[in-house]
Amino acid sequence: MILLTRRATFSASHYYWNPAWSEEQNTAKFGRCANRQGHGHNYTLEVTVTGEVDPVSGFVVDLKWLKDVIEHEVLDVYDHRHLNHEVPEFATAIPTTENIAIAVWNRLDAAVKAAGGAKLNRVRVYETGDIFADYLGETAEISGEPA
Amino acid sequence: MILLTRRATFSASHYYWNPAWSEEQNTAKFGRCANRQGHGHNYTLEVTVTGEVDPVSGFVVDLKWLKDVIEHEVLDVYDHRHLNHEVPEFATAIPTTENIAIAVWNRLDAAVKAAGGAKLNRVRVYETGDIFADYLGETAEISGEPA
Amino acid sequence: MILLTRRATFSASHYYWNPAWSEEQNTAKFGRCANRQGHGHNYTLEVTVTGEVDPVSGFVVDLKWLKDVIEHEVLDVYDHRHLNHEVPEFATAIPTTENIAIAVWNRLDAAVKAAGGAKLNRVRVYETGDIFADYLGETAEISGEPA
Amino acid sequence: MILLTRRATFSASHYYWNPAWSEEQNTAKFGRCANRQGHGHNYTLEVTVTGEVDPVSGFVVDLKWLKDVIEHEVLDVYDHRHLNHEVPEFATAIPTTENIAIAVWNRLDAAVKAAGGAKLNRVRVYETGDIFADYLGETAEISGEPA
Amino acid sequence: MILLTRRATFSASHYYWNPAWSEEQNTAKFGRCANRQGHGHNYTLEVTVTGEVDPVSGFVVDLKWLKDVIEHEVLDVYDHRHLNHEVPEFATAIPTTENIAIAVWNRLDAAVKAAGGAKLNRVRVYETGDIFADYLGETAEISGEPA
Amino acid sequence: MILLTRRATFSASHYYWNPAWSEEQNTAKFGRCANRQGHGHNYTLEVTVTGEVDPVSGFVVDLKWLKDVIEHEVLDVYDHRHLNHEVPEFATAIPTTENIAIAVWNRLDAAVKAAGGAKLNRVRVYETGDIFADYLGETAEISGEPA
Repeated sequence: MILLTRRATFSASHYYWNPAWSEEQNTAKFGRCANRQGHGHNYTLEVTVTGEVDPVSGFVVDLKWLKDVIEHEVLDVYDHRHLNHEVPEFATAIPTTENIAIAVWNRLDAAVKAAGGAKLNRVRVYETGDIFADYLGETAEISGEPA
Repeated sequence: MILLTRRATFSASHYYWNPAWSEEQNTAKFGRCANRQGHGHNYTLEVTVTGEVDPVSGFVVDLKWLKDVIEHEVLDVYDHRHLNHEVPEFATAIPTTENIAIAVWNRLDAAVKAAGGAKLNRVRVYETGDIFADYLGETAEISGEPA
Repeated sequence: MILLTRRATFSASHYYWNPAWSEEQNTAKFGRCANRQGHGHNYTLEVTVTGEVDPVSGFVVDLKWLKDVIEHEVLDVYDHRHLNHEVPEFATAIPTTENIAIAVWNRLDAAVKAAGGAKLNRVRVYETGDIFADYLGETAEISGEPA
Repeated sequence: MILLTRRATFSASHYYWNPAWSEEQNTAKFGRCANRQGHGHNYTLEVTVTGEVDPVSGFVVDLKWLKDVIEHEVLDVYDHRHLNHEVPEFATAIPTTENIAIAVWNRLDAAVKAAGGAKLNRVRVYETGDIFADYLGETAEISGEPA
Repeated sequence: MILLTRRATFSASHYYWNPAWSEEQNTAKFGRCANRQGHGHNYTLEVTVTGEVDPVSGFVVDLKWLKDVIEHEVLDVYDHRHLNHEVPEFATAIPTTENIAIAVWNRLDAAVKAAGGAKLNRVRVYETGDIFADYLGETAEISGEPA
Repeated sequence: MILLTRRATFSASHYYWNPAWSEEQNTAKFGRCANRQGHGHNYTLEVTVTGEVDPVSGFVVDLKWLKDVIEHEVLDVYDHRHLNHEVPEFATAIPTTENIAIAVWNRLDAAVKAAGGAKLNRVRVYETGDIFADYLGETAEISGEPA
């Protein structure tokens, strides 16, 4: 089994807020992350695909193609954006690291499938160097329903 | 000459906008950074002091004290905040990496001087792993006057 | 499947020594690590949990809670300590990277289980940037019985 | 289950070229990597083994031994070399990150098996900080047959 | 005094060889680096400029402009190239880390001067994470004259 | 002006203790670092030299020679050692990061001078990724006189 991974980064704002709760409840649960002025991170993304090594090229997938897919499907939508206000999937789901990993998977999975040959294996999202989430697929929807 | 440096991190939102300019001028100058929804970064701060090594303790300064000063003077004000909207010095100055470095110096200099013995030597601010500014003092005000 | 990981660090001393062996045997097996004056490392710990994403919070677990558990169960006992002399599980087991990973798992597993909802998935311990061990559970005791 | 990993680095040149194709086809597929003057990387290798923790030593394997095996079987052949021209397995296979991971596995597997007790679990090769391949075994030959 | 730094990377091949010397002399001096098949590195470049912070933009220089200058003046010439065979300044000078730092300075200095306002302050080149050279200007020619 | 830097690492134990003080005074000043069981770190050393670039070799100094000097003068004495108990200069000086930087300078300065041509410019010591000291020479003795 062979896995190929490409890393990418984006910078974005977010905050944690459940509109069904009072200000006190949100602050009790989310602490400083509940500040609705927002704060931000340099997110690092690791996208892993698995497949056969093509005997002609030595590639599982063309990394230039994978880079373009990540840029087009994810970075163009997330980078230099406010995740809560500008990214559709976070209109109704809290942009936690876990939910971002699931959302990135959902954005990439169709494009990787459409290309044929390789499959998405894992999406890792680092919020900081000390916190990261891995999503390995199999559930279709991101969780968290603040609205 | 001996220098002692302590690193710290904070996560914050910002955007670049000069209110004297039109939307077109701001976008032409600042690109995606002009998006007033804001975006964010994990900033890394390096605070360097210089002085004599105390023959009794082997310290230039007590690093626990320096950590507390950085937390109280900078992190409590900047971390998990929107720099443009919540930090006083950026009400009238654009929160570029350069201006953040100068502002952090200004926040720390008085406290270091008040403690006696050591002097602030340099403040480095990383906006990402690929971009950083160093301020070495001698000017009192941060630049950029959008208001 | 979703995994959430939190990193933490501690600084500790250790040495490798099997009291059933002679000085020569210990040195032959453990090299410079057999020096009983001890030496030390900045250890980095990665604690990974797995579970469902809570639809209300978007969390697998509350990372603030996980940080507190790691601090209370591991860092308070290991940080700025001599592992051989001050940590109970290494009174009778050699504090190799492998055994530290197992011991950290054992220290965290009960607390994660008690909280309900998520399960410990992996403990990774970096002794240096070039050496690390992963423990994925299923054995209850740490190995190595020097005493 | 316990895994132990050792990291190592080597610096080498390579290029991507399929001799069955024209210059145009190679450039279309491989872009700047098709430049036959070659270019190079600081490769980072992570070699992971799995096994029982020896109750006498606390080791899965002796890391000094593992380091020597990596140096002898891989670094002595790859470091400061041109992979296409000086390493036998790349005479007929393109030295992509995927193929290097498989080739390193094939170089190490016999030595680890011969030592007994532990098994090779994974070989990760970083071409840069942003690109890496993982090979987990089970296929004997590296892919890519330009010749 | 304020300094602003931008990091960039390139991957290239090189070797060390003085044509005035015999094979034995080259190997005695340069060791494995004298292998004329070449080997390569992921080089990291840090380009530092100094100047006044523009009160209108908060910039010392526009980082997008600086990125473009580095790409056009350096990366387009060095990246995915064999430094000895494809880069003019290394036709007659050995591409050591020191000489690369000087050569990058010489490539950037005119462009930075032409833009006005800021001055080049330092060029740092990392050959690996463990080896780097800093050039701070004032000498016009790179050293090493193998030809 | 050209600077060349080589990085090296060592793992060692230490503690902070002034024998002229009571246990209470030591704990008040040094906190957890006063634990005389000791704790340890992976120290990273950066040794910077400055000089002319030799026109024949393109070298400021031979990095292989510099590596050997660092290993012989510093690593052989500090690595896998307890600094307080096994390194002569810390019998009477507290092994703070500041004092280690000065001590490493003193160990290297004579050897670099003896070689001729280049001069020691800076010694940086990282105790962790977040704390480092730089020594730039000019004072001959390390400070701190616990004995």
